[in-house]
Amino acid sequence: MAHESSHSIEPSTQRGEFELIAAIRASLGTPPEDVIVGIGDDAAVLSVPPGEQLVVTTDMLVEGRHFDALTVGDAANAQSAAEAIGWKALAVSISDVAAMGGRARWAVVSIALRAEHTGSVADALTVGLRRCAESFGVAIVGGDTTASPGPLIVNVTLAGSLGDGDAVLRSGARVGDAVCVTGALGGSRLGRHLHPQPRQDEALSLVKEGVVHAMIDLSDGLSSDLGHVLDASGVGAMLWADRVPIHPDATRRAAETGRPALEHALHDGEDFELLFTTSPDVAARLATDGLCGTPVAWIGRLTGDADCVIAPDASQESAAVPLERRGYDHFRNG
Amino acid sequence: MAHESSHSIEPSTQRGEFELIAAIRASLGTPPEDVIVGIGDDAAVLSVPPGEQLVVTTDMLVEGRHFDALTVGDAANAQSAAEAIGWKALAVSISDVAAMGGRARWAVVSIALRAEHTGSVADALTVGLRRCAESFGVAIVGGDTTASPGPLIVNVTLAGSLGDGDAVLRSGARVGDAVCVTGALGGSRLGRHLHPQPRQDEALSLVKEGVVHAMIDLSDGLSSDLGHVLDASGVGAMLWADRVPIHPDATRRAAETGRPALEHALHDGEDFELLFTTSPDVAARLATDGLCGTPVAWIGRLTGDADCVIAPDASQESAAVPLERRGYDHFRNG
Repeated sequence: MAHESSHSIEPSTQRGEFELIAAIRASLGTPPEDVIVGIGDDAAVLSVPPGEQLVVTTDMLVEGRHFDALTVGDAANAQSAAEAIGWKALAVSISDVAAMGGRARWAVVSIALRAEHTGSVADALTVGLRRCAESFGVAIVGGDTTASPGPLIVNVTLAGSLGDGDAVLRSGARVGDAVCVTGALGGSRLGRHLHPQPRQDEALSLVKEGVVHAMIDLSDGLSSDLGHVLDASGVGAMLWADRVPIHPDATRRAAETGRPALEHALHDGEDFELLFTTSPDVAARLATDGLCGTPVAWIGRLTGDADCVIAPDASQESAAVPLERRGYDHFRNG
Repeated sequence: MAHESSHSIEPSTQRGEFELIAAIRASLGTPPEDVIVGIGDDAAVLSVPPGEQLVVTTDMLVEGRHFDALTVGDAANAQSAAEAIGWKALAVSISDVAAMGGRARWAVVSIALRAEHTGSVADALTVGLRRCAESFGVAIVGGDTTASPGPLIVNVTLAGSLGDGDAVLRSGARVGDAVCVTGALGGSRLGRHLHPQPRQDEALSLVKEGVVHAMIDLSDGLSSDLGHVLDASGVGAMLWADRVPIHPDATRRAAETGRPALEHALHDGEDFELLFTTSPDVAARLATDGLCGTPVAWIGRLTGDADCVIAPDASQESAAVPLERRGYDHFRNG
């Protein structure tokens, strides 16, 4: 990035490292009671609820890979993009903790950024992080800031908690389980991917009921993420195409690509919905009632076969064809 | 980096994302019993020892900032550098957890790297992480791998534990305390900075004795890190120059720069020694006996003044001069 262009973003607000940390700290406000020591010492000290286990996940977002390069010379655009990046960086980790059945609690955030982004872009990033944290009951308790020679990079590590033995694993699926997903899938990259809404309440509700056998969040895409559950559980799946909930964005995207909307729903990824397996009885109830106001679709059943197939509908299973996994590989697709 | 040059590093071992994760997982071996769920699900699940609090820190290392760009066209050199980066990425976080009085337990690691580094460079990085983890009793329980459009970036988040109320803060220092440091300081960048040895045993021993009032690890440099303790505790300090333990590397560095070795000991940083305050009685004993085989120097005392000064020795305090803080600012020094 050229020196003169970058300066046109925020001409007067470039900061030193300690000023930046102080600004972030001030913006984040007072931490909750379980934060014994927050930002400002060598490490944070946290009080884990008695009888609970810890759930930990980490995600790194890289400019030019997970989000577009920040607009040069258009301050409003760069700030709006940075706020979305801040939201997303935390939201994707909340989605992971939720998919384990945990309640997100504390996050630490590392940010590498160019000196010209230490002003209003850093502020907007912090606003996005804070809004997401407040929406989902997370305290940001520490972090690291450093200069980047190139891309803006944000790494969030999120710790949550769950009751002893309550973790919902990818490996808990059983032959005969119903396969369910929350929400609707596909075409996320038309814009929804910038503001993911992790299904924490929905996941906690399933765990509280004790009805979920296996769970994963849909980040790579249904075909790929279901594949992770099948591999971990040693089962296969029969999906019914007519039951896959197709998002209007998948239909819009299909009009652009010329491919079927169903393909976008099966493979696009970045939906951040939950995929879970449960008993057919529970699936039937959830498909009618939804979960915390979110629709649930019962899209298939688990089999003793080694693979994953998809039929037009439940009455035509003999016409099923193999479902290819098209998971995103950062090194091969990039 | 040119395509042909990068390929000369590891001609046959470039990997996809899932192969890379599998290779890292295999290299890390079996996790300890407190890891309920390790690498391979949406998040790790960990069992915190009863009655203990959690200590969490995060550190990001960026190629070209925290370490030199990896050598192109010299595989052995790039691997040796990558192994050191892996060690250091974890060691600096262990140093932070130790400085809080905690025992390091679990780490998650995010890595952004160019596709040509997914082979032997990634393997060497993992070896460095594993060696450090094994040396200090840490389990690597999860992570994220992604493609970088530029620099290699490693982010480690480390969680440790400590007894309820055992956290040693920067804010606990009192007027009259002795100021002590472990080891010897300065000139770390001649090579020691590549293989830091966090003082975890020494810190745990101080906490077990219940004798330490405030503690910090020396990453930015003595003048700057002591400044953080003084600010947090609302005290000042009188240092005695003849007591500051000067590392032979500081002397070698002084020969290169023409500046006094003492200056290098006071300001260089990346020593990863402990600075702590305690009673004069304890300081006298530690200065004689050391701590877990590591020398301890009693380098000054805390005062009710607002600033930090340095005298030639304890008998010439009236000749003290202000000690300038020369902390490294990633955005201003970079």
